[in-house]
Amino acid sequence: MAEVVKVYGPAYASCPRRVLACFIEKGIEFEIVHVDLLKGEQRNPEFLKLQPFGVAPVTQQGDYTLYESRAIIRYYSEKYKSQGTDLLGKTLEEKGLVEQWLEVEAQNYNAPAYDLVLNLLFYPKLGIPVNSDLVKESEEKLGKVLDVYEERLSKSKYLAGDFFSLADLSHLPFNHYLVNAIGKAYLIEDRKHVKAWWDDISSRPAWKKVLEL
Amino acid sequence: MAEVVKVYGPAYASCPRRVLACFIEKGIEFEIVHVDLLKGEQRNPEFLKLQPFGVAPVTQQGDYTLYESRAIIRYYSEKYKSQGTDLLGKTLEEKGLVEQWLEVEAQNYNAPAYDLVLNLLFYPKLGIPVNSDLVKESEEKLGKVLDVYEERLSKSKYLAGDFFSLADLSHLPFNHYLVNAIGKAYLIEDRKHVKAWWDDISSRPAWKKVLEL
Repeated sequence: MAEVVKVYGPAYASCPRRVLACFIEKGIEFEIVHVDLLKGEQRNPEFLKLQPFGVAPVTQQGDYTLYESRAIIRYYSEKYKSQGTDLLGKTLEEKGLVEQWLEVEAQNYNAPAYDLVLNLLFYPKLGIPVNSDLVKESEEKLGKVLDVYEERLSKSKYLAGDFFSLADLSHLPFNHYLVNAIGKAYLIEDRKHVKAWWDDISSRPAWKKVLEL
Repeated sequence: MAEVVKVYGPAYASCPRRVLACFIEKGIEFEIVHVDLLKGEQRNPEFLKLQPFGVAPVTQQGDYTLYESRAIIRYYSEKYKSQGTDLLGKTLEEKGLVEQWLEVEAQNYNAPAYDLVLNLLFYPKLGIPVNSDLVKESEEKLGKVLDVYEERLSKSKYLAGDFFSLADLSHLPFNHYLVNAIGKAYLIEDRKHVKAWWDDISSRPAWKKVLEL
């Protein structure tokens, strides 16, 4: 039997959630090892041995350690490709498009979404002043990215084609914050096809389980 | 015989160079379709049909179009895995580490390296004022990232292990600018193992050919 995968990180943080959503979709057994980011445990020497940049998540299965959430979801989706939801695409060409949209998420969507969530959700909690110029600029950037998604999703049900994949899954954590935590639901809801896509992917049982962890 | 792959983009730009280095390593036949970024050709309707975000590169082989340089290099390295240099790793575990370090490049290294090159190489050419605070901050960030590389490269010859891979290749374009165009060679050369790694990967015949294109 395969060894349980340890996931280091707080279950409420975006990048660990990307990994947890993948593991639940795939039916991979895991165990969360909590890392308290507010106490700075990600800077502890023991943690830095696992992840030298001091960020979560890290996974460990036996003596195989891996970090960077998008690397982890690729590796485990491939390792367990015959079980649970197929998240990679079936043909080489489908896989290429999954990679393309996963990179679009990482390179175009992630930065403005991250800056919005940081400024509007976490800075107020930490008493750090909000950078209003950056908020405005990030919202404009993200809007333009979502305009491209709207066009794409008018032609295919999911980003990489007519199948749910890592490319869609990777958007769940920050989309969730946009809609449910920082009052930016209109960025999603004002775009008909983006809204239909979000309604679909956010109602998947695996994602609902992640939110309960 | 496989169809020639069209690569849209200027051969001097960083992201197209990532693709070209991969294609030459793999012995994949390609043809460059020049896109003049300074004339804004990436905003032409014809180009936006291929790449809706208006950035280079895009590849086309037959009717299969793909964008995002790191997605392209993954797809073509897999498609042509039996020819040229193996860039993906042999086992699932090696592939996982290639993914991890490719993500480290994209998430940790790329942003500060990009900001340095933009401010110190391209802004002066375009008459845009340099953001000195950002330059200072980016150099500090990049230095910390390269400290982790130094530690890693003291234990293995390349980032993902003892084999050259996409993870190393992906650093070639910006490392080249740091060393040869913006006076930041010391960021590489002051770190013994990073320097040895750079000397090794930058002297590969495929990379030298990219610089001649």
